Amino acid sequence: MKLTHYDRSGRVRMVDVSAKAHTEREAIAGVLVKMNARTLGAVRRSPKGDPLEIARIAGIAAAKQTADLIPLCHPLLLTHIDVQAKFSKQGVAITSCVRTTGPTGVEMEALTAAAVAALTVYDMCKALDKGIEITGLRLLEKRGGKSGTYRRNPKFEIRNSSP
Amino acid sequence: MKLTHYDRSGRVRMVDVSAKAHTEREAIAGVLVKMNARTLGAVRRSPKGDPLEIARIAGIAAAKQTADLIPLCHPLLLTHIDVQAKFSKQGVAITSCVRTTGPTGVEMEALTAAAVAALTVYDMCKALDKGIEITGLRLLEKRGGKSGTYRRNPKFEIRNSSP
Amino acid sequence: MKLTHYDRSGRVRMVDVSAKAHTEREAIAGVLVKMNARTLGAVRRSPKGDPLEIARIAGIAAAKQTADLIPLCHPLLLTHIDVQAKFSKQGVAITSCVRTTGPTGVEMEALTAAAVAALTVYDMCKALDKGIEITGLRLLEKRGGKSGTYRRNPKFEIRNSSP
Amino acid sequence: MKLTHYDRSGRVRMVDVSAKAHTEREAIAGVLVKMNARTLGAVRRSPKGDPLEIARIAGIAAAKQTADLIPLCHPLLLTHIDVQAKFSKQGVAITSCVRTTGPTGVEMEALTAAAVAALTVYDMCKALDKGIEITGLRLLEKRGGKSGTYRRNPKFEIRNSSP
Amino acid sequence: MKLTHYDRSGRVRMVDVSAKAHTEREAIAGVLVKMNARTLGAVRRSPKGDPLEIARIAGIAAAKQTADLIPLCHPLLLTHIDVQAKFSKQGVAITSCVRTTGPTGVEMEALTAAAVAALTVYDMCKALDKGIEITGLRLLEKRGGKSGTYRRNPKFEIRNSSP
Amino acid sequence: MKLTHYDRSGRVRMVDVSAKAHTEREAIAGVLVKMNARTLGAVRRSPKGDPLEIARIAGIAAAKQTADLIPLCHPLLLTHIDVQAKFSKQGVAITSCVRTTGPTGVEMEALTAAAVAALTVYDMCKALDKGIEITGLRLLEKRGGKSGTYRRNPKFEIRNSSP
Repeated sequence: MKLTHYDRSGRVRMVDVSAKAHTEREAIAGVLVKMNARTLGAVRRSPKGDPLEIARIAGIAAAKQTADLIPLCHPLLLTHIDVQAKFSKQGVAITSCVRTTGPTGVEMEALTAAAVAALTVYDMCKALDKGIEITGLRLLEKRGGKSGTYRRNPKFEIRNSSP
Repeated sequence: MKLTHYDRSGRVRMVDVSAKAHTEREAIAGVLVKMNARTLGAVRRSPKGDPLEIARIAGIAAAKQTADLIPLCHPLLLTHIDVQAKFSKQGVAITSCVRTTGPTGVEMEALTAAAVAALTVYDMCKALDKGIEITGLRLLEKRGGKSGTYRRNPKFEIRNSSP
Repeated sequence: MKLTHYDRSGRVRMVDVSAKAHTEREAIAGVLVKMNARTLGAVRRSPKGDPLEIARIAGIAAAKQTADLIPLCHPLLLTHIDVQAKFSKQGVAITSCVRTTGPTGVEMEALTAAAVAALTVYDMCKALDKGIEITGLRLLEKRGGKSGTYRRNPKFEIRNSSP
Repeated sequence: MKLTHYDRSGRVRMVDVSAKAHTEREAIAGVLVKMNARTLGAVRRSPKGDPLEIARIAGIAAAKQTADLIPLCHPLLLTHIDVQAKFSKQGVAITSCVRTTGPTGVEMEALTAAAVAALTVYDMCKALDKGIEITGLRLLEKRGGKSGTYRRNPKFEIRNSSP
Repeated sequence: MKLTHYDRSGRVRMVDVSAKAHTEREAIAGVLVKMNARTLGAVRRSPKGDPLEIARIAGIAAAKQTADLIPLCHPLLLTHIDVQAKFSKQGVAITSCVRTTGPTGVEMEALTAAAVAALTVYDMCKALDKGIEITGLRLLEKRGGKSGTYRRNPKFEIRNSSP
Repeated sequence: MKLTHYDRSGRVRMVDVSAKAHTEREAIAGVLVKMNARTLGAVRRSPKGDPLEIARIAGIAAAKQTADLIPLCHPLLLTHIDVQAKFSKQGVAITSCVRTTGPTGVEMEALTAAAVAALTVYDMCKALDKGIEITGLRLLEKRGGKSGTYRRNPKFEIRNSSP
């Protein structure tokens, strides 16, 4: 087990992916924007706009900015980005899915999309509720690449994170 | 109680801050990158680099990108950005502090700085642990502006969010 | 009458606004995305999403990027950005409104918002109709600054540009 | 005939190009910046600079920003971008040409290059003429990809759009 | 004498400019792109384009990106940016001038403009000469702010740096 | 010998790389941030932070921005970026290494990484020493592509540039 982002002298570095195969890769991430019932009710009742639509679009746009935000991330040609946002009992639940054909995975892109979609929901609700919390931002699934398929254990999910 | 980001027809909109006073404003946000003990140990033992330093710098840089990421955020001239990251029992705890002299608050900038610093920690540890979770991203304090000072209730904090 | 973007030697330059007063300024721009009736019908019938909403948001985001796109534009702190998009007989009509308190006007920001909103509509419809045309991108109104209020002559409007 | 940017539930989405072949693709777009004769004369007489050169460069740079501006556009590795700008009777006529080897076309990149080049011309002339209009932004040609070659009908061109 | 970019624990930080006065500030920087005589001749003879014009524009655009490139730089509203490029005996000499009305100086903006203009010249000539060197990037003058006016000693200039 | 960035009419243009082979390419660049002994001593004694670490990270991030800064640069998928910074007798010596698998070389990316790392060092030291100079920014090595391997002559290096 080793931290791939360190060189031999212990300095943080970008992983060299020059020799890695270009394969289809996918990552799915999730996050919850937890808010109180009163705020959630006000957002749900918003007369006709779809406040979750702007969050979706912000998340899609952010996935494309990942390599600009995370210093050691490689630029990748994303072939698909999707963000879904829906009301849950506790607030707004967001899921993102990102695909590429490239030499490295897209976990960071999926997580960045979910994070920025969540921040966008927060932004629209913050005047009502300063206690909103963005929680449970995590990788749900990952496919492709040398390490193969990963699926987060749903039991573990329930035990360890409130969303 | 109203959602300021909606116009009269219920459509999402950017708040007009043309007439708001320019005052000193500050926001402090926090987040936890929760990882298992083995990963945390590996990161702590990293021979000589400081893996948290890159997260700090990524967070500072991200605060300046907030208006590019969150569609309805106003561009602001940030006068100070600080991000602190330290090891805790459960992982890496991050705090961000942002200041401006402007017509609107900097909560989103502080939250974005904390979120991107957390994602950067995640990126450096993800080869060791696919179960890492970013959790408890929330506003801790806010000063300045019409709504005055806000400080998150520490008791509430303990009861409701694991970090 | 002189071109302000030229220096004494005739070279293109950025106007120096160091000594100009900070006043409230507003600009309103418009544009039409002209498409054939079949395409327009398909967009209108889109089952439940609001295809114009994504165009609005893209336009708002683009206004904040104006100084990055137009080389001689000054960075400005926009205090309000709004983009409206609605179906017309010929296609989708877009209007943008931008405000600032600053030393120079926001025409370019309003025009950029309208242009990018129009390009976003185009992007969503281009699979149906390669003949779509973005037309009549123009300043409709301008307030504030030394040159005072400008309002485009509606008669002239009708005579000279199809939208 | 279907709108590719909608998912089964009618929500706007990014097209998934993961399985599409990487082929050579090209798109050519055009636009006219229409201005009055007096403004056009002043620009033409500009003593020695080449006001159209800055528009060309802004257009080339903008093509590379397309995926950051248009939310549902895919990032692509552009292999060539060219923008030409010349004086015409009515103002400045701009043509852009973009090429890639990739899984999807470059219409949006060519249109964005042309639009930003036109906005840059507008910016340099706006002090002389508030009535400038950007008009006839459209796809002229497209090569490569499943849908094959498209060439805009020049007759249709003449009849329907003033440039 | 102290390094302002360090906090009390010795960690690198962004300087807090919240309490600093907004005054007019200016900075002038210079740099030399040194190339061999044959390359310089080829560039000078370029039939009709002005290869230095694109360098000027790239420098102006880059000044506006400074806070995105240099992590601890504050975002500032630049009121004027100018870049001049001219042929010298040894290659291309570039000078940049940046102004703001703000709480901190614009040295980094002037240096960034000069550096990117120089890199742009390099890019256009690199096919002819791999030995091109960008040298003598330095602050020439600085006005405004608490530390007052600074002018680089021209004698020192001659002794220590070849341009 | 010809300038590849000019079209037949002598106008500056982007090179068309549509037909060039995708091969592994690498470029190494270097630069020196020259400062006086007193400033250098203060930076070296910085109690516990690593001031060169932030410069490294800024350089890595900047390499990814190259095509946004240099107008005629092609976007490329960088597979590796490394920046090293160390104290030398005269100041801080920076080396950058960039790799890609693509149709064109990465000299500009390596030079941009080195330049921005150097500017970041400058930014952190500028309060102590206005005479700091960034010098000797040059290509050290280049591998891959049609023109094969290039290595700067170390003798030439010593004779012509002070670092």
